[in-house]
Amino acid sequence: MALLYKADSERGQQWQALFAEHAPDIEVRLWPDVGNPADIRYLMAWQPPENLRDFPNLEVVFATSAGVDQFDLRQLPEQVPVVRMQDPGIVQGIVEYACMAVLSLHRQLPLYLHQQRQGQWQEQPWVPARQRRVGVMGLGMLGKAALQHLRPFGFNLRGWSRSLQPLDGVECFAGVEQLPAFLSQCDTLLCLLPLTEHTRGLLNARTLGLLPRGASLINLGRGAHLVEQDLLQALDSGQLSHAIVDVVQEEPAPEQHPFWQHPNIWLTPHIGAVTLPESAFAPLLDNLRRHQRGQAMSGVIEKHQGY
Amino acid sequence: MALLYKADSERGQQWQALFAEHAPDIEVRLWPDVGNPADIRYLMAWQPPENLRDFPNLEVVFATSAGVDQFDLRQLPEQVPVVRMQDPGIVQGIVEYACMAVLSLHRQLPLYLHQQRQGQWQEQPWVPARQRRVGVMGLGMLGKAALQHLRPFGFNLRGWSRSLQPLDGVECFAGVEQLPAFLSQCDTLLCLLPLTEHTRGLLNARTLGLLPRGASLINLGRGAHLVEQDLLQALDSGQLSHAIVDVVQEEPAPEQHPFWQHPNIWLTPHIGAVTLPESAFAPLLDNLRRHQRGQAMSGVIEKHQGY
Repeated sequence: MALLYKADSERGQQWQALFAEHAPDIEVRLWPDVGNPADIRYLMAWQPPENLRDFPNLEVVFATSAGVDQFDLRQLPEQVPVVRMQDPGIVQGIVEYACMAVLSLHRQLPLYLHQQRQGQWQEQPWVPARQRRVGVMGLGMLGKAALQHLRPFGFNLRGWSRSLQPLDGVECFAGVEQLPAFLSQCDTLLCLLPLTEHTRGLLNARTLGLLPRGASLINLGRGAHLVEQDLLQALDSGQLSHAIVDVVQEEPAPEQHPFWQHPNIWLTPHIGAVTLPESAFAPLLDNLRRHQRGQAMSGVIEKHQGY
Repeated sequence: MALLYKADSERGQQWQALFAEHAPDIEVRLWPDVGNPADIRYLMAWQPPENLRDFPNLEVVFATSAGVDQFDLRQLPEQVPVVRMQDPGIVQGIVEYACMAVLSLHRQLPLYLHQQRQGQWQEQPWVPARQRRVGVMGLGMLGKAALQHLRPFGFNLRGWSRSLQPLDGVECFAGVEQLPAFLSQCDTLLCLLPLTEHTRGLLNARTLGLLPRGASLINLGRGAHLVEQDLLQALDSGQLSHAIVDVVQEEPAPEQHPFWQHPNIWLTPHIGAVTLPESAFAPLLDNLRRHQRGQAMSGVIEKHQGY
């Protein structure tokens, strides 16, 4: 019985060591050293191998990420469930980045750092957090955790998702119909959506234009959520004041990408969250053992929804 | 019965309006329009007038700040208590700045912003928060609030103060004897001390040298806590990796100040906290009424300690 690992090779060795210590009945093989394909019951991958039919006994695919937009779900055997990574480390990383970014925009850190290099000692007006409307798009595991950690600062919180998710202390909106109402009330918009056919390009000239003038954007979702040219126009027209983006359409961002040098964009190299085997191992093994006992696993992707 | 206000004149008018609406028995006069000095029972000031003996009926001095190091406490009539500003807005502002700064250092935002402008897409190793030791110097109202808001992120927290203050989930150190042990365990050091004869210049070559190599510093206390030349040397030698400072010895920082252009310093213009009359009024009036009823006020400065 073997698990085939196909992602970053350094982490692959860590997974291998963790299984060897805590679950020696499951042999971990590192792609491309597949061995006998019939041995492979489990696959852990950032992107699966092209032809999964080569693995006749494949039972479960474990994604190494929380979102699975990089999977072609239609290519996967129908009876094989795909399970998202449920690493508490991913949640922690996203929460840290989200709060860092929201607080930086709230306290105008980009402007103050610009002033510093100009030698300008100039206090800007302070807005109490309760008057700062922070809106989170995407109310899954990550969006909920971000809201929960923003709450103690007293921000005026709202959330948007495909279907209504009532959350304590958060004004919630749902569906395409309520998107304009939601956007019109977000001084800072934080994108934590899954990437699906419904959310691709959702941050565009029209939707950014619905934000209050001078609003700011944080994209911690996927690069493809954002029409990059539309962001540049919104910044240049003053519709948006600043953007903090951790993801772009093409990664690594190419040398000529306009975000590198834009004065009103902070760009980080997709660092929001990293899966660390040390924190991800226990929940993954627990899920795998549930599957072996015939129990329901958590974090199974709804293939028709894409998340 | 009058209160004399001597600080920022725009805010003075807001205080005047708030008293007129909610406590019309107390007339607010704005410095320098003192009127008859015998009317003045209360003084609210950033810095008191030079000769307080001119006000024979002065009963209480309310500082417009949380720290009162800018007061010459020996010049104040002995029987007149000095009360710190206990504005929830000050606490909120400091908490926001502290968490923004700690998270930025934790996630290496200064390095990532530098990389951005170099066109470098390079992920840095991520350290889980529980392995990041954050130490707070000063465990008064502000230090406690900062720790409380840092805790949900899972940081490894420690605190240092003059006398031992046991705090839940925080490893606490006290006094000069335990300062080296405390400093040797702080990856990020956050200064929220009051400025007194004991804390002036406490952040110097010796103490910064006790931090783990590559540590970072956040100064949200007063400029005079830090020997600025020693910080520069610690950064240039690599003993410290980065500093975020909101206060300097001379404010506004003079044009030639080396912090403006130092690549490893973020300098903000003393914006950590601002007293907003709208949030500060209720606690101040409550305190004033307690005094009028002969009850103990909260936030009274221990003049011999200076805070």
